[in-house]
Amino acid sequence: MNFVFKFLIVVLLLQKVYQQTNQILLGNMSSTATFLKTLSSRRTVYSLKPALPAGVTINNIQEVVETVVKQTPTAFNSQPNRAIILTGETHKKVWDAVVKNTPAGDAQKRPASERDTAYGTIIFFSDESITKKLQSDFAFYHDIFPVWAAEASGAAQISTWTALETLGLGANLQHYNAAIEAVLPEKIPKNWKIHSQLCFGSVDQAPAEKTFVENKVEIFN
Amino acid sequence: MNFVFKFLIVVLLLQKVYQQTNQILLGNMSSTATFLKTLSSRRTVYSLKPALPAGVTINNIQEVVETVVKQTPTAFNSQPNRAIILTGETHKKVWDAVVKNTPAGDAQKRPASERDTAYGTIIFFSDESITKKLQSDFAFYHDIFPVWAAEASGAAQISTWTALETLGLGANLQHYNAAIEAVLPEKIPKNWKIHSQLCFGSVDQAPAEKTFVENKVEIFN
Repeated sequence: MNFVFKFLIVVLLLQKVYQQTNQILLGNMSSTATFLKTLSSRRTVYSLKPALPAGVTINNIQEVVETVVKQTPTAFNSQPNRAIILTGETHKKVWDAVVKNTPAGDAQKRPASERDTAYGTIIFFSDESITKKLQSDFAFYHDIFPVWAAEASGAAQISTWTALETLGLGANLQHYNAAIEAVLPEKIPKNWKIHSQLCFGSVDQAPAEKTFVENKVEIFN
Repeated sequence: MNFVFKFLIVVLLLQKVYQQTNQILLGNMSSTATFLKTLSSRRTVYSLKPALPAGVTINNIQEVVETVVKQTPTAFNSQPNRAIILTGETHKKVWDAVVKNTPAGDAQKRPASERDTAYGTIIFFSDESITKKLQSDFAFYHDIFPVWAAEASGAAQISTWTALETLGLGANLQHYNAAIEAVLPEKIPKNWKIHSQLCFGSVDQAPAEKTFVENKVEIFN
């Protein structure tokens, strides 16, 4: 019996040594692999249920969006990204207005489905007063500042979408910009330019396989 | 002695049960926390050494860029993102040309430092023939397609930059678009529109603390 215990302990210790060596050798590679796997798991999910997964609250989502908006790099650290979260009655009211603003027929199906099956919507904006100030301060870059604001918004959008995936949520990205802008809550500043709407909820049905183009990244030495 | 072994085994088993319970309870939250921590660790690093960290190869970087470009979502799944990696003589030659294209004095310092201290450059493009095809096929969205291409490029840029951080690399994002475009390798198609240059290398000195604006994400119920 004593021998069995000693043997077990040696096995457990060797296992620990193996794990720690692995950690040292593969440390970087393994966090890169995890990050790329997380990115690759993010998908466009249209088949949603208007609920949050067990253990996830709207405040978890708020924390995700605030962290992403805060940490996303921007031109001259100007930080133009802004975001709000709609849920409950406000979410329903806004998407219902989009439905009514859309020609009757098939075109109404998507906004109606966001209204009825998504739990909430994250809306991404850029504060245009910041972009205009940069344009006036640095005339040389006048035409490129709005492009940089769009790229910084795209960065915040993908990081938020990927973070929602890690929370077990499904999401899809919409661009009903004009229709949504017309019915936003009163207190949203008029100088916030709308980029997109990330509609989220629990996953009802997983999406089908995605197709990719051949896209080699060449190295020039 | 027998008692000590039995006690040790009970301790090790309890530890295992605790770890597994934690994994189940905190599964989602913990991968979200890891993802947000990774995002927050990505910084603009100007103080670089022209080397790769131990165990990292240029092919690891190539795999990162290919995975990110592949997995970044795009309007109508049109996949306009393109990228190349410059290193060695090509990296030096391109940045040297930027230095010579820049007025003498302080303005030359940044491109000279990229030439001398970065190990390589990832250049991000959009294939404009794809954007133009979308504009002609879907006239209703004509003006927004270039904005969506910029947002999709921003998404690929931030995910690449964050993945390089997980590999232990430092990086900074530059926009010497016109000067770089003039001296790109011959085989780059003329319809690839350049967005930015992510210069990378080993971290020499970590950057100073970053400052943030107050940026609350409000929930509307």
